[in-house]
Amino acid sequence: MAFSSIFVKPNHSLLPFHIHKAPTPNCGGRTQFCVRASVNNAGDGGRTIIRKENDEWKIDYACEKPATPLLDTVNDPIHIKNLSTQDLEKLAAELRADLVHTLSNIGGHLSSSLGVVELTVALHYVFSTPDDKILWDVGHQAYAHKILTGRRSLMHTIKMTSGLAGFPKRDESIHDAFGVGHSSTSISAGLGMAVARDLLEKKNNVISVIGDGAMTAGLAYEAINNAGFLDTNLIVVLNDNKQVSLPTATLDGPATPVGALSRTLSKIQASIEFRKIRDTAKNITKQIGGQKHQVAAKVDEYARGMISASGSTLFEELGLYYIGPVDGHNIEDLVLIFEKVKAMPTLGPVLIHVVTEKGKGYPPAEAAADKMHNVAKFDPKTGRQFKPKSSTLSYNQYFAESLIKEAEIDKNIVAIHAAMGGGTGLNYFQKRFPERCFDVGIAEQHAVTFAAGLATEGFKPFCAISSSFLQRGYDQVVHDVDLQKLPVRFAVDRGGLVGGDGPTHCGAFDITFMASLPNMVVMAPSDEAELMHMVATAAAIDDRPSCFRFPRGNGIGASLPLNNKGTPLEIGKGRILIEGSRVALLGYGSMVQRCLQAAEMLKTIGVYVTVADARFCKPLDTDLIQLLAKEHEVLITLEEGSIGGFASHVSQFLSISGILDGPLKWRPMMLPDKYIEHGSAQFQNEEAGLSSKHVAATVLSLIGRAKEDLLLN
Amino acid sequence: MAFSSIFVKPNHSLLPFHIHKAPTPNCGGRTQFCVRASVNNAGDGGRTIIRKENDEWKIDYACEKPATPLLDTVNDPIHIKNLSTQDLEKLAAELRADLVHTLSNIGGHLSSSLGVVELTVALHYVFSTPDDKILWDVGHQAYAHKILTGRRSLMHTIKMTSGLAGFPKRDESIHDAFGVGHSSTSISAGLGMAVARDLLEKKNNVISVIGDGAMTAGLAYEAINNAGFLDTNLIVVLNDNKQVSLPTATLDGPATPVGALSRTLSKIQASIEFRKIRDTAKNITKQIGGQKHQVAAKVDEYARGMISASGSTLFEELGLYYIGPVDGHNIEDLVLIFEKVKAMPTLGPVLIHVVTEKGKGYPPAEAAADKMHNVAKFDPKTGRQFKPKSSTLSYNQYFAESLIKEAEIDKNIVAIHAAMGGGTGLNYFQKRFPERCFDVGIAEQHAVTFAAGLATEGFKPFCAISSSFLQRGYDQVVHDVDLQKLPVRFAVDRGGLVGGDGPTHCGAFDITFMASLPNMVVMAPSDEAELMHMVATAAAIDDRPSCFRFPRGNGIGASLPLNNKGTPLEIGKGRILIEGSRVALLGYGSMVQRCLQAAEMLKTIGVYVTVADARFCKPLDTDLIQLLAKEHEVLITLEEGSIGGFASHVSQFLSISGILDGPLKWRPMMLPDKYIEHGSAQFQNEEAGLSSKHVAATVLSLIGRAKEDLLLN
Repeated sequence: MAFSSIFVKPNHSLLPFHIHKAPTPNCGGRTQFCVRASVNNAGDGGRTIIRKENDEWKIDYACEKPATPLLDTVNDPIHIKNLSTQDLEKLAAELRADLVHTLSNIGGHLSSSLGVVELTVALHYVFSTPDDKILWDVGHQAYAHKILTGRRSLMHTIKMTSGLAGFPKRDESIHDAFGVGHSSTSISAGLGMAVARDLLEKKNNVISVIGDGAMTAGLAYEAINNAGFLDTNLIVVLNDNKQVSLPTATLDGPATPVGALSRTLSKIQASIEFRKIRDTAKNITKQIGGQKHQVAAKVDEYARGMISASGSTLFEELGLYYIGPVDGHNIEDLVLIFEKVKAMPTLGPVLIHVVTEKGKGYPPAEAAADKMHNVAKFDPKTGRQFKPKSSTLSYNQYFAESLIKEAEIDKNIVAIHAAMGGGTGLNYFQKRFPERCFDVGIAEQHAVTFAAGLATEGFKPFCAISSSFLQRGYDQVVHDVDLQKLPVRFAVDRGGLVGGDGPTHCGAFDITFMASLPNMVVMAPSDEAELMHMVATAAAIDDRPSCFRFPRGNGIGASLPLNNKGTPLEIGKGRILIEGSRVALLGYGSMVQRCLQAAEMLKTIGVYVTVADARFCKPLDTDLIQLLAKEHEVLITLEEGSIGGFASHVSQFLSISGILDGPLKWRPMMLPDKYIEHGSAQFQNEEAGLSSKHVAATVLSLIGRAKEDLLLN
Repeated sequence: MAFSSIFVKPNHSLLPFHIHKAPTPNCGGRTQFCVRASVNNAGDGGRTIIRKENDEWKIDYACEKPATPLLDTVNDPIHIKNLSTQDLEKLAAELRADLVHTLSNIGGHLSSSLGVVELTVALHYVFSTPDDKILWDVGHQAYAHKILTGRRSLMHTIKMTSGLAGFPKRDESIHDAFGVGHSSTSISAGLGMAVARDLLEKKNNVISVIGDGAMTAGLAYEAINNAGFLDTNLIVVLNDNKQVSLPTATLDGPATPVGALSRTLSKIQASIEFRKIRDTAKNITKQIGGQKHQVAAKVDEYARGMISASGSTLFEELGLYYIGPVDGHNIEDLVLIFEKVKAMPTLGPVLIHVVTEKGKGYPPAEAAADKMHNVAKFDPKTGRQFKPKSSTLSYNQYFAESLIKEAEIDKNIVAIHAAMGGGTGLNYFQKRFPERCFDVGIAEQHAVTFAAGLATEGFKPFCAISSSFLQRGYDQVVHDVDLQKLPVRFAVDRGGLVGGDGPTHCGAFDITFMASLPNMVVMAPSDEAELMHMVATAAAIDDRPSCFRFPRGNGIGASLPLNNKGTPLEIGKGRILIEGSRVALLGYGSMVQRCLQAAEMLKTIGVYVTVADARFCKPLDTDLIQLLAKEHEVLITLEEGSIGGFASHVSQFLSISGILDGPLKWRPMMLPDKYIEHGSAQFQNEEAGLSSKHVAATVLSLIGRAKEDLLLN
């Protein structure tokens, strides 16, 4: 049996794209606070200054915590109800400064929240949560909402273990009407809440705040179509920032929003000046006001004609009353429009088209290609991020690099992603083969079936979708790919726990839902070199669909194949990495590393276990499993996924073949429910029940040794 | 241990809706053929007559096979290329008569195919499959396409074991460009084929034929949005029959199409007369013809203004060039439009809005509330269906009845379905509680998240979605329901094999993908009485989500609870039905019946096995399983689903608790891959590896008895 070497140094000349080095910050960590606000002089270097200049609020960012005298008085939305428009504007400026300061210390979703500061203030001024429901679609723009709803003192814990979630979460606050993380759910959920209100004969408002990127998803369309039909009062705020909402930049700068919808939105914006809105909006309500509904409907149509533009008909045809576009950074206009809409009780579903700018008011974000969408800690003065140094690249980059190598020799290889060029690594592929890379928008369903169509014509599509987002294209994987045995390759990133993004982004279920399909080849690499081989393997499998899942984060430093070009693996064959006795650890994917670490630990106390890398969940390497089962007393399988996955395939074989009838102790280790539901922020400290210590302790208890032997706790 | 009685007589006074009795046909089975065609006299009772009258083709339907002299000459689309318009019309009439005759003998999807006879003829006349690709969305309207593409002699085998599929299938014919069954995939797949064509620098056409019902699905919108962006040549034929495409009738007659989209389509239809189309269409191409694209674009916009109507802008805003509406029963117009569009090579994506009538040309279908959408064998003269007699109702009806009983005492119970009022049984609920029942259109994603929204406000939503369609709402189940622990109840019908509808509709995966979720309570009833109890159980579970899956088809005749009102079961507790020794059969859901049948068989040769009903997959009845494992040598689990489901939960418990370390023989029985992929039409003859004979044989082999003892082979 062979032992493959691992833990070797990474190949640093791997990619033509260099890792940004962390700059030296130009000021220290925490210093004395220097509070100064509403003072009309320029910033003086170390202090963040918020001031009004030419009727606009300006902020000079510095490393120090800004003075926020107005924001300091707000611990609940009720505290802003009596503020003047000017105070609301000041509050927005303070919020913006506070957000930049907080996120410069911990990192997070910066620019989306900066873009909706005024919108957040205006919504909370006009509407009254929790009676009124505000639903933040996707939810990474809800930091200002969290601050205004009593969570300011905990903002430094965002995305941390036991800290605030990175998205709205019902458990966390009564002001979070709906938990979120994936996009485009807010109109459906809001419509449910609006219908519930009507059935209960209540009067509260429901407001769904959704981005233009999220509007490209079919779920949003289904919901709008149904809202138009039900004609229930529902306020949809279309937060149009001319961006898809997920990692936005290509390698060459800001990404163009994909989809015809974006053209329509641009057309609307081009056709009308913001400042006309206010007066026209006044007209609407004046005219509709006291009249009967039928008459009002006509007047209203006329009034709409005055403010709505070519393109707004898209929404009108779908049954929404269109208002806009509104300057999303003008609190006075926003408040006015929201108050008018709130005052019209029989309007049916309304779409208020608000135009905002991601990163608004923070020059480094405004200037950045990705608008500083999701940042590491950074220097507030310059926006320079302190990215942790790593000697290896992210798995996505290894994936992209090896796919490029395959595509260089096979012109039929094409790549598809769903608004995740950065997240999947396909930006690199797009730069190399722009005509062979397709960003379909936030539209996982379409991504999968589109790939199936390409496969029917002899192309070799690699469809790159994160594990938890692939859930949204599951029927298409089953119905359009697997049952037709079409050779679509699924590159499933973020398999397993994902850290701070939490349970909504946890890739817990893909092994289970992919390996249950009849025709699918299901693989998982144990390191980045294996990933490259699996890319080559998937490219070679052309008679049926295949998938490979890999974790979030960076490679382990494995020795990469020559020229970063993988070699196809034998399908359905695993490998033994360490030969030992009594106990065999059979890892799947990233968990092979935990097995190796556990074996190292155990070796120190004289316990020598076998470690194997399954490589394939389907087809299963039954020879390998039979061998492991027959030559060991204990067989432990490890996977970073839910029940129903790799372990199920192993147990199925073991039982059918009669091996389980004997004395073999088989133990499946996987992600327990509680970690899937709550615990994925715990990834960092490996407390998810799958740590190498935990594995080692399990081994000891099964062979009758005290786990104290390892000084484990 | 208790033994619950089963196999008792059904309660015939169950529902206020009676089962239709089969009428006596007014003519016998097969008689002598009396061929007569193109003769201008009236029908004479026994003979189907096809004749032209006042410039229109009329058919007098009778029991006999119609003479189809023209159709008899067509075995490939190439055979219709030289026909005159009048011959094409005659061909359409013969196709219609042939379809009615064939389906009267075997049953099937009648009215969708009747509605597109002219469209099918025109498409195959103008375009050339297989080089050109015609994609039939959903696919139950593709019978005429199958007849014209060489499969006429096999049409009597449709939906039968080893017969033709009920939908297009790539394995079956090179003329079937894409396999289908679920709705709304055709634009995505067609766009993939169109992009592939462009990359390969080929010139073929791609035509996606999609119904107005299928247009309500988010997948279609995602695809249109992407098509508008890519601006590739793609022809979308919107087959607008003013119906949702799935079982269409409410209990009170034809269903109103849901969704705002349907209003838009009506508005278009109302605004223009069909006969103007032809000349206008001629104008377009004349004007655009030889000119440069930029100039053409303007002319074209003008020309479109002439033919397109208010409402068409919906599609135009999404980037499609709109043409229509076109009379879908006028072959001359259809041919003209298709030829013009085919001749314009740089048009980008086009939407041709074709208006058809379901059941067109067959008076009984035209008159029927459901347009005779999916029929049993019927008398062609009258349309009366010969429905097989059954002493029990369908599972869906038992579900609806017990849900009504729950809703009568709990006003918070609401019901949601996705264009499946008939298929799910919720039409009954809708009739009783119209304001508490929501048909959201073919929009499973929205159905789930909408239900989640209702649940946040204290309602108790029952979301009824067939197993294979629930795949389309999977991310919403995970992200919007389960992770938020919202008490949405999923009534999952068509769990397991479904007979003739085949693999696309097979409910193979739901146990696996639902039971892997952290918070979900997962149940399956062993009979219709248990189903009623599980409806009551789900109603009572208000702190987390739950689901129950039940099979297609009729109840087994179980004794129903008093007044059809179920009693909540203890959560996570199964029951023992027969006490035996050595072998325990543990069934999940419908498979409990197979266990009981196997036990009956085995009893005849003196083998007495224990039979248990798990009731719950999650939480699992670990006490019951421990008891069964400890008191028997063999434990067999049975489920009608894929790997990763109930058996995985059992094996997980057995291994973790150490029970599998001992001599217990545990054998999981489930749907094997090959039956999921190919075999669901074999449901009728129980060859799917889960028959009671197969179970009994497995038992005998495990206890060392010859299976010949049972005279099994």
